[in-house]
Amino acid sequence: MTNIKDVAIKAGVSVSTVSRVMNNRGYISQATKDKVFNAMKDLNYQPNEIAKSLFKKKSNIIGLILPDISTPFYAEETRYIEEELYKLGYKLMLCNAYNSSSREQEYINMLLRNQVDGIIIGSHTLKIEDYLNLNLPIVALDRYLGDDIPIVCSDHIEGGKLAALELLNCGCTNILHFSGSLKVPTPSNDRHKSFNDTLERKNIKVNTVELPINFFSFLDYSSIIQEALDNNPDIDGIFATDTIALATIKELIKRNKNIPNDVKVVGYDGLSICALTYPTLTTIQQPIKDLSKEAVKTLINLINKKNSYIEKKIILPVSLKRGNTT
Amino acid sequence: MTNIKDVAIKAGVSVSTVSRVMNNRGYISQATKDKVFNAMKDLNYQPNEIAKSLFKKKSNIIGLILPDISTPFYAEETRYIEEELYKLGYKLMLCNAYNSSSREQEYINMLLRNQVDGIIIGSHTLKIEDYLNLNLPIVALDRYLGDDIPIVCSDHIEGGKLAALELLNCGCTNILHFSGSLKVPTPSNDRHKSFNDTLERKNIKVNTVELPINFFSFLDYSSIIQEALDNNPDIDGIFATDTIALATIKELIKRNKNIPNDVKVVGYDGLSICALTYPTLTTIQQPIKDLSKEAVKTLINLINKKNSYIEKKIILPVSLKRGNTT
Repeated sequence: MTNIKDVAIKAGVSVSTVSRVMNNRGYISQATKDKVFNAMKDLNYQPNEIAKSLFKKKSNIIGLILPDISTPFYAEETRYIEEELYKLGYKLMLCNAYNSSSREQEYINMLLRNQVDGIIIGSHTLKIEDYLNLNLPIVALDRYLGDDIPIVCSDHIEGGKLAALELLNCGCTNILHFSGSLKVPTPSNDRHKSFNDTLERKNIKVNTVELPINFFSFLDYSSIIQEALDNNPDIDGIFATDTIALATIKELIKRNKNIPNDVKVVGYDGLSICALTYPTLTTIQQPIKDLSKEAVKTLINLINKKNSYIEKKIILPVSLKRGNTT
Repeated sequence: MTNIKDVAIKAGVSVSTVSRVMNNRGYISQATKDKVFNAMKDLNYQPNEIAKSLFKKKSNIIGLILPDISTPFYAEETRYIEEELYKLGYKLMLCNAYNSSSREQEYINMLLRNQVDGIIIGSHTLKIEDYLNLNLPIVALDRYLGDDIPIVCSDHIEGGKLAALELLNCGCTNILHFSGSLKVPTPSNDRHKSFNDTLERKNIKVNTVELPINFFSFLDYSSIIQEALDNNPDIDGIFATDTIALATIKELIKRNKNIPNDVKVVGYDGLSICALTYPTLTTIQQPIKDLSKEAVKTLINLINKKNSYIEKKIILPVSLKRGNTT
């Protein structure tokens, strides 16, 4: 790798002159500047960011720890987080935790060793004290990691209510609700509660099936969905995150059920893959791009200590996107 | 951030003793070692990888440049690449190039400044000389970046043939084929040629619709698919990558076509999201996990210069995965 000394020799100037040109320090004639820039160009010289970060104690690298980058929701979030970080001059180090606490801990240690400026976490397997002890700017995506760590999430309470009202308005009276694992400390649990409460106030029966905690492969869905449909053969309404909703629709069609005549389905997320599936899913749209932007903005404010007051819970609005499944 | 001096003070030893313990250099009593390790633990001290990489000229960071992480194919590849790198002690820096040459160039400069040990590229917008001049280990995913840069891809020729034979065996005689942009220097073009050649040898008419180069949002699909179906109302067979195939099935169902009775559809990729869609897509399965593993293996061999001979074109087999669309 070319270094500053090579540039100095090529330009016929001293190393300190090259350094002054690079850092725009002190008076240097245009002719000298041109010599240095041409030498840098000829040698394809890239100033070493590693040396700079060691000196400045700032790496401009952000770690992103997610349960699984390949699930459509996290893939979309990652895209927008990367885009936002790029605009602000930061780089993204990506970590897939697969909901394993040892893996998450290893990643956090690795990120600390690499002196990242901050971490965005969508995982949740460590104890809350472990996150608080990190002494590093952290923002949580839809996970409670402790009172001092800002969390960015969609308005799950409103989302649960909107979904319940949509099924109510369609006349559903026997509803199946797939909820995430209630052991995970996430505001999604408010959505499940709000959905059930809204329906129970109208005396509508809800059968809630709680999904296991490590549940990402679409192949895992099939047996749980089949069992739930076997146990609830007369349901006429379903609420679940988009991917579970799509897999359930597939299973219902296989069972000769007509969507939406026999069973209405409402999703949660508003994934872009819904543009590829038929019938088009009615779903509660999370503002995925804005959630990602807010997470980045909050983290960078923490890093730069720009605002003395950092909002600890950022909740963004959701909306009903009606398709052909209700 | 805690530094080595803090550890020395806490342990009641000199900085050089801490350094010798950390690097396992010279004789140090177990009692001293314990004091240092306990101090490191109490202070949550992480040795600084930045300083280490500056010294060793090795960062253990790999850059991954992709057109768009949020598309299902790249999201799955990224998952497996990250997993493989993690096992080998490398970290992943993720870059979304969006098929923009200025953005790709900026990313490459950034990765060079950050002294990554190598780059995996699934993008393709720069001139081939630009890649060759980088003087850094590079592996290309399904893109020709020059004779000296190893490429990892699936057996597109066999894949095109398998798809053609499946449609032929189903009795299709009027076939619509969505191909990627032929301007992109990728072995996928061999798939398109092999598909068309196989059918033309049997005197079967193929209408090929070439997709534009910047084409990732699913919302962009709709108008192109509608136009293609309007122009080819009597087609009875379709071949396209999975996401285009799914969007086309959606449009065909809207037009009251029965799949597979009226139109047979074969995809290419074998995405895991196909587990969520109905009818289940017949598709040519790319070995996505193995492609990712091979790319990482080849790159790490290049970095370590382990093998004097590095295979320049790694082609992995594909297979027909029959669903309910043929």
